[in-house]
Amino acid sequence: MMNKKGLAILMRTKMRPLSPLSSKLNQMQVSQPEGDKVSSSPDASLLPQREFTQVRESMHSAMSTNKTEIVDVALDDFSEGYFFLSPENRHKILLSLAKEYDLNRTQVRELMKQHLDLQLPSDKADDSGDHEEEGSLSAFYRIERNLRQALKPMYEVLFERLNTHPGGLKFLSDMRADILHILEDVNIASLRALDSHLKEKLITWLSPANLELHNITWDDPASLLEKIVAYEAVHPISNLIDLKRRLGIGRRCFGYFHPAISGEPLIFIEVALMKDVAATIQEVLWDYPPISEHEASCAIFYSISSTQPGLSGVNLGKFLIKRVVDVVKKDMPNVSVFATLSPIPGYRQWLLSKLASSEMSGSAFKENLLRLEEEKALMDASGGSDMGSSGTEVMWNLLTSKHHEWTNSPNLVSALRTPMMRLCGRYLLKEKKRGKALDSVANFHLQNGAMIGRLNWMADRSQKGLAQSGGIMVNYIYRLDNIEDTAQSYLNEGHIEASSDFRSYIEDELEKE
Amino acid sequence: MMNKKGLAILMRTKMRPLSPLSSKLNQMQVSQPEGDKVSSSPDASLLPQREFTQVRESMHSAMSTNKTEIVDVALDDFSEGYFFLSPENRHKILLSLAKEYDLNRTQVRELMKQHLDLQLPSDKADDSGDHEEEGSLSAFYRIERNLRQALKPMYEVLFERLNTHPGGLKFLSDMRADILHILEDVNIASLRALDSHLKEKLITWLSPANLELHNITWDDPASLLEKIVAYEAVHPISNLIDLKRRLGIGRRCFGYFHPAISGEPLIFIEVALMKDVAATIQEVLWDYPPISEHEASCAIFYSISSTQPGLSGVNLGKFLIKRVVDVVKKDMPNVSVFATLSPIPGYRQWLLSKLASSEMSGSAFKENLLRLEEEKALMDASGGSDMGSSGTEVMWNLLTSKHHEWTNSPNLVSALRTPMMRLCGRYLLKEKKRGKALDSVANFHLQNGAMIGRLNWMADRSQKGLAQSGGIMVNYIYRLDNIEDTAQSYLNEGHIEASSDFRSYIEDELEKE
Repeated sequence: MMNKKGLAILMRTKMRPLSPLSSKLNQMQVSQPEGDKVSSSPDASLLPQREFTQVRESMHSAMSTNKTEIVDVALDDFSEGYFFLSPENRHKILLSLAKEYDLNRTQVRELMKQHLDLQLPSDKADDSGDHEEEGSLSAFYRIERNLRQALKPMYEVLFERLNTHPGGLKFLSDMRADILHILEDVNIASLRALDSHLKEKLITWLSPANLELHNITWDDPASLLEKIVAYEAVHPISNLIDLKRRLGIGRRCFGYFHPAISGEPLIFIEVALMKDVAATIQEVLWDYPPISEHEASCAIFYSISSTQPGLSGVNLGKFLIKRVVDVVKKDMPNVSVFATLSPIPGYRQWLLSKLASSEMSGSAFKENLLRLEEEKALMDASGGSDMGSSGTEVMWNLLTSKHHEWTNSPNLVSALRTPMMRLCGRYLLKEKKRGKALDSVANFHLQNGAMIGRLNWMADRSQKGLAQSGGIMVNYIYRLDNIEDTAQSYLNEGHIEASSDFRSYIEDELEKE
Repeated sequence: MMNKKGLAILMRTKMRPLSPLSSKLNQMQVSQPEGDKVSSSPDASLLPQREFTQVRESMHSAMSTNKTEIVDVALDDFSEGYFFLSPENRHKILLSLAKEYDLNRTQVRELMKQHLDLQLPSDKADDSGDHEEEGSLSAFYRIERNLRQALKPMYEVLFERLNTHPGGLKFLSDMRADILHILEDVNIASLRALDSHLKEKLITWLSPANLELHNITWDDPASLLEKIVAYEAVHPISNLIDLKRRLGIGRRCFGYFHPAISGEPLIFIEVALMKDVAATIQEVLWDYPPISEHEASCAIFYSISSTQPGLSGVNLGKFLIKRVVDVVKKDMPNVSVFATLSPIPGYRQWLLSKLASSEMSGSAFKENLLRLEEEKALMDASGGSDMGSSGTEVMWNLLTSKHHEWTNSPNLVSALRTPMMRLCGRYLLKEKKRGKALDSVANFHLQNGAMIGRLNWMADRSQKGLAQSGGIMVNYIYRLDNIEDTAQSYLNEGHIEASSDFRSYIEDELEKE
């Protein structure tokens, strides 16, 4: 059990969340960082230019020397010094790394010319053990080996050395968070190339084989639990009772840990064991008492939070879900349904832009966003007030009201329900960006092989839930017998699998095609 | 404690060693396999050609499909079917893999041409944030990324999928053992390229971070201990008392394990805790009783055996030694000397070839292998018998006598000692191949950062010891404060560090320079 000190720490954590706050990242929402990610360093104006030069020099030594002792010191100096740099100097040093420690293009081209000077062996000689043939291939292999080597930017050496250096993996993740932050503002080709190399490396190093699944419980150290409190990004943990409940009967919390990053998970998932697929977050977080575990037939994934913004794009969540499904299935054979209760973070924003463009476009090309009966119901519910002269206008005004006042009027709630649910169905099933679902959480679960199950009205009445999706939540279903097929047909053909229940919401939209 | 059944299994193991026998490989001796490594399959003539076609088809599916279910079945079929193939068919399938699943050279060259068509940005624009500059770089990065991808042979997919497939890593190691075996007989460029790719992958996957160090004791399962008995390649374990002693007081045995290859270490090392650096293998293996551990000031590495011939060139031994040094230092602060007692596997062979060429070469260019007084001592000891008309001839005849009869004559032993030790010093310190020590065990420890310490006369009187080095053994010393420097100066400049004691053996040889 947690001791008094542990409790005190937890309470403090709630009052003063881990800084930088921006190091929270909700992988499901892939929320855009709030702009101060590079700013966890001390006031830059206090630090002389000398600091910058020193950090840069240690970075250089860390790559260019071969003496382990010197490399170790240089890596320490670099990673410590880096955190003291101002955002501008971090930017500068990352650019310097990307540009000055890139590959040697002249050497690469020299090897290319050598390769092109060779005669490609003819195909027909291919199946014979011809010795001349082997001789000419041998030249190709040699040049290709050298070319592979030459195509490695020099900064890969720094990445590789940091990876095996104590604290280095975490540092690489923090450094990548800065890189991603810079790339949000400016698109610099060399920095983007550096990022893609670093991401590749991180994907290799953080392969599931190297991660450990841990069932996080109330018996874990307070230092770990305070991190869960701080990092939980989907449904914030409001107090100790809330946390204890999430780790208690009928609930599970699993984290993925890497041996080189101790004391905090890279990502964690919260699971509720229930009789039915949850339709509101209320049931999951607050309804009491929970059912006894042997009655459970559903495992509901209601929150998944990534702790490392620098691991964006390293899909740890996919493997975590698979592992957790295996563990739960083994522990509780009665559980046969694996589903999520997920936010729809982009829905309201998308809907507002649709409403706005529908209002503004000329009448000739005006899209009929609302059906006639929906239009009528909205006008009726708004009681001819000053809420607007059309259904779309009323809807816009209701959805942009600061305190979501419409949720207090049963009439308005009822009038909004049909169009909101129908358009939400369309948003999830039809709205795409580069062939993938526009909604980031939808894309996450669909690429993992889930299907869209059910939309739930008034499922999350929190400020956050109303602001994201007008309170609608969705269940994604993981059907264990065809997760892979579903994932493949989504990834290859952009096909989104959905339950018939779900498809009925957007019948009309489907018929339009 | 081990039960009766365990003991029985161990005894059986001794009587019927694990087959294939060839899967033993002594990493220190880097012994050339004995020729039957591909032959663990059933009689080939009983198997129809259909089997080969099936294995080949499953290999193809395992690479070319993306559906996980199909890939999993194909990987199982391939790895199971492969073991039933005749050596000839394994050879055929490996060649097919190397040649038909190589990279697409036409595509590679197309990308090279695109790259060469681009104008290299001028150097002076490098430090500006010039947008045109960035645009042109972006084209380079894109082509280089595609080129890196195109330079990956298709068979890497098979390797990667096998690595994450149950049993796949072990299979890859077994498959590589076959490849190495083929390459001993014939030099096929495409197969050599395949091997170098596979080796690279294995080095990544078997990085020390993924390995677990385990202190193997008498309490370990008999199934593990029988493997130690079977794989011990330096000083064979002759009976249960011998094994128990090597795991008992004053002794340690550490193995490196990989989670995907359970129940057997990839490599293991045997350590004796002693008062002084051991001068004979007798003291280590047989002298009784051992000293109590708190009196020990030296840790003697007297045997290191690799269990996977397919991991040749993946230097696990280096990391194992480092880890073991750390563990021993932490457990036993009194131990301050870390040294080996090592065989010199190539010495006698080298010496015989020197003696032969010295005898045969014309008198004008004859190398004076022996000093005058050595020559005289040998002639005297041989007593003018028919052992030869010169010192070199006598030495040749003594060293080639089938049962090493000279070891029974104190006179002969004494006459041989001086020239044998002196020339052994020269062999270890001066004889090189491509800048590395000619002796494989010497090269292993020197590249790990050890120095040559002391030669020990009549240190291993076993048939094996006499056949390898006339019974001489050597201590390599790991001086913890400059292991890295020693390793670097050996690797970079070919410099071999040796104690002054050792250098005195070959004073003359050094003066010649």
